[in-house]
Amino acid sequence: MGASGARGTFRRGGLHVSTEAWRGSPGLFTDLYQLTMAQGYLAAGVAETEACFHLSFRGNPFAGGYAVAAGLEQALEYLEALTFGGADLEYLASLRGNDGERLFSEGFLGHLEGFRFVADVDAVPEGTVVFPHEPLVRVSGPVVACQLVETALLNTINFQTLVATKAARVCQAADGDPVVEFGLRRAQGPDGGLSAARAAYVGGCAATSNTLAGRVYGIPVAGTHAHSWVMLFDSEPEAFAAYARAMPNNATFLVDTYDTLAGVRAAAEEGVRLRERGHAMIGVRIDSGDLAWLSQRAREILDAAGLSSAKVVASNELDEHLIESLKDQGAAIDVWGVGTKLVTAADQPALGGVYKLSAVRRPGGEWEPRVKVSEQTAKVTTPGVLGVRRFLAEDGRPLADMVYDTCHPPDGDRDVVMIDPADPTRRKRFEAGAPHEELLVPVVRGGTRVYEPPALPGIAARTREQLGRLDPTQRRFLNPHTYPVGLERGAHAVRTRLIVRTREGMKG
Amino acid sequence: MGASGARGTFRRGGLHVSTEAWRGSPGLFTDLYQLTMAQGYLAAGVAETEACFHLSFRGNPFAGGYAVAAGLEQALEYLEALTFGGADLEYLASLRGNDGERLFSEGFLGHLEGFRFVADVDAVPEGTVVFPHEPLVRVSGPVVACQLVETALLNTINFQTLVATKAARVCQAADGDPVVEFGLRRAQGPDGGLSAARAAYVGGCAATSNTLAGRVYGIPVAGTHAHSWVMLFDSEPEAFAAYARAMPNNATFLVDTYDTLAGVRAAAEEGVRLRERGHAMIGVRIDSGDLAWLSQRAREILDAAGLSSAKVVASNELDEHLIESLKDQGAAIDVWGVGTKLVTAADQPALGGVYKLSAVRRPGGEWEPRVKVSEQTAKVTTPGVLGVRRFLAEDGRPLADMVYDTCHPPDGDRDVVMIDPADPTRRKRFEAGAPHEELLVPVVRGGTRVYEPPALPGIAARTREQLGRLDPTQRRFLNPHTYPVGLERGAHAVRTRLIVRTREGMKG
Repeated sequence: MGASGARGTFRRGGLHVSTEAWRGSPGLFTDLYQLTMAQGYLAAGVAETEACFHLSFRGNPFAGGYAVAAGLEQALEYLEALTFGGADLEYLASLRGNDGERLFSEGFLGHLEGFRFVADVDAVPEGTVVFPHEPLVRVSGPVVACQLVETALLNTINFQTLVATKAARVCQAADGDPVVEFGLRRAQGPDGGLSAARAAYVGGCAATSNTLAGRVYGIPVAGTHAHSWVMLFDSEPEAFAAYARAMPNNATFLVDTYDTLAGVRAAAEEGVRLRERGHAMIGVRIDSGDLAWLSQRAREILDAAGLSSAKVVASNELDEHLIESLKDQGAAIDVWGVGTKLVTAADQPALGGVYKLSAVRRPGGEWEPRVKVSEQTAKVTTPGVLGVRRFLAEDGRPLADMVYDTCHPPDGDRDVVMIDPADPTRRKRFEAGAPHEELLVPVVRGGTRVYEPPALPGIAARTREQLGRLDPTQRRFLNPHTYPVGLERGAHAVRTRLIVRTREGMKG
Repeated sequence: MGASGARGTFRRGGLHVSTEAWRGSPGLFTDLYQLTMAQGYLAAGVAETEACFHLSFRGNPFAGGYAVAAGLEQALEYLEALTFGGADLEYLASLRGNDGERLFSEGFLGHLEGFRFVADVDAVPEGTVVFPHEPLVRVSGPVVACQLVETALLNTINFQTLVATKAARVCQAADGDPVVEFGLRRAQGPDGGLSAARAAYVGGCAATSNTLAGRVYGIPVAGTHAHSWVMLFDSEPEAFAAYARAMPNNATFLVDTYDTLAGVRAAAEEGVRLRERGHAMIGVRIDSGDLAWLSQRAREILDAAGLSSAKVVASNELDEHLIESLKDQGAAIDVWGVGTKLVTAADQPALGGVYKLSAVRRPGGEWEPRVKVSEQTAKVTTPGVLGVRRFLAEDGRPLADMVYDTCHPPDGDRDVVMIDPADPTRRKRFEAGAPHEELLVPVVRGGTRVYEPPALPGIAARTREQLGRLDPTQRRFLNPHTYPVGLERGAHAVRTRLIVRTREGMKG
């Protein structure tokens, strides 16, 4: 553990550290098919056509009742950086199709050479509580630009939203105790650790063990010591004494190298000596065994030594369910070190977000809604240029989210009706002028960023505030109450008409 | 899909593209506690002490019978790059302990300023089939150097080994059909996609959709088109015709935007027109619905149109179990697009590798074995400076792996006895001179790389060769036969003695 942390101001990402795998080559941070489609749009003469895409997910992760949006800042940095360098273009020129001829034409590569992302983006601010089937990001503009960025937006927002949500759940279980993210060693690659540290902080974690994340994102860093420290010395008391002398202001002792309670007793003796020298032991860490029972015994030993302010830190494959269970058992744990299961979101390691075309506008024309019909009902999309309106109770509690077509917004003078597309007989009615907020805010206009997010602690504060407003029944882990998300009546009618027309067209 | 792929030589990683999150700041790609311990070792006057650490894992992933080692190349690149820049040191100087004083001393930061990794590393070559409880990497040298690199080695090798193993299983299920890795959009961050693409190729995948991985690692790239392509046009046949005109040498049509079999018929008509123009349709892709049934109908439609060489590509949340099931049902699928479940190793998203101290050598002394005892038997470590000897049958089949202490290697003139530490009554005896190979090879000596790995296709070929030698009962998915891994008799005796002595010491 440790109270160590970067003092001073927190900083946004994008310090002069190369921290994303795509930094050297943003244009290639994409699936090949985005590039072949881009060439195709140009060749087919539809490059002037505008498209509207939405990024959304189809189900709450972890069988939970909510998700926490995260990753927008890194997505915006990518959009700003998106160019194709000479070596990238040479690489693309080397690719061959199934006839042995070049896959990409000179003309297309010339287009990429001058490519910039010039389109509009609206997005839900990070730290916002979000739900399935509503857009987190809307991208509209020339179809080539909108198409090329699909993979990167999904990659960035899928993962950070997933981990921020996991962290929110873990912190909910810890019920106010600090949670420290310890997962770098088992994260999915270097950046799997770095992005996860940021998202975990957004979701509510107090600190990370990841030093790079500390520098890049200004997240407080913390840590104890490893078993190897103890094993290097001839005995555990000798090891603790050496650590206390060397690092008197970071003294959390890992006590389970040989026998946990013997370790706690040795740590307590060292804690008393530290106090005599004018320092405060931070605590002990238990990393194996019965954490409920051992933590209670450790607490007794520490208290008996007059070290009542020393903390008991626990780790070992923890997640929200184990923490909840340990709390229920009265475990005397003050700080939770959570690693693997947090940074890999172990019980559901992908959010499954999608990015779907929902409207098309030809030069000089109007937006035309488009729908994808699937044999799997959950994969049918919602047409239109969509917004999300969140209706609020008097006390600010969110009541329901309504997805609507911004080209045909509900009439401000009439009651608004929202329909559940999974069961159109389920409807909600809100009075004209009922309190609400719009979830999507403009973040990029014509390729230029028009949004400055709060610093990371501000985003984390938004998460806390948003979760605090959510009904406890919607936050619980087991069978949470489903938060209502529906379609505005007009948008629902358009969607139904398009689906029916498409399905009838198939028969014809 | 696409036959598109980088022609020409494959290249090792480390092109002039910044592809790892740590590139700008390798020294901070670690847990804070490695740095506080490093300062502690120096302060405690034990910096001259040498340590020996081993990286191993405790159980085969995915309830399988084996793992495929991967990630060594990126680990070696990290060790070669490991330095602390000025901004890193400034950051560390800004950290504070629980008394508000600096966490790191000027002296220690000066030490880091000149730090280089000067130690020895032995490792299992990538593409080697490996098993629980045997070292994949051994690091020995000054304790500070060995300790500092723990997190990065674990991060890199844990994840790539996990994904290479998953890919090997998916390719085993595909039984010779090409598997294309499609996972970037749902990978755990940008590098989660990049590392995963490399590891998937090591494990047997034929290509990736990840264009950056194509450039950086020389992996063949492939792709089709998205639903958005179809939706942008007024009808599916029109969309296919536009795609075929624009990309005649990359013509795989995604057929499930509206109605899958109508899509296949439209694709087949376009395939016939392509052929008339002198091109070959690559195939169709089905991304939803009953893949077994739809693929058979698609095959019939394509064959009836005289397009018997056109492939049926399938995707949609595939993994080794679904592929095996689809094969059992006689699905007419030629190419498998596998994404989320491969790159996130969805059913077990972390390998759980550990890096444990096992021996200590004081200046001028001998290596002294060390053991960590835990209340969880699986967490007890193996002491010594360890090697792994793989005994082979006449035909090259691996019979058993024996972990031994290289300071006390088995007597070459006598039979060798290997003991299962989980059940010491289970033993295997090998005659003196029985055929065997050593798994660990020297890769770094005194901080200098002494090992040049094969290019990536060579590593993938090693995986194929290694898996081909494994007994089918050890490769099967359900309840695989356990491959024997044990301790050499002398090493087992030392381990037992140390554990007993430690446990008795606790009582005293």
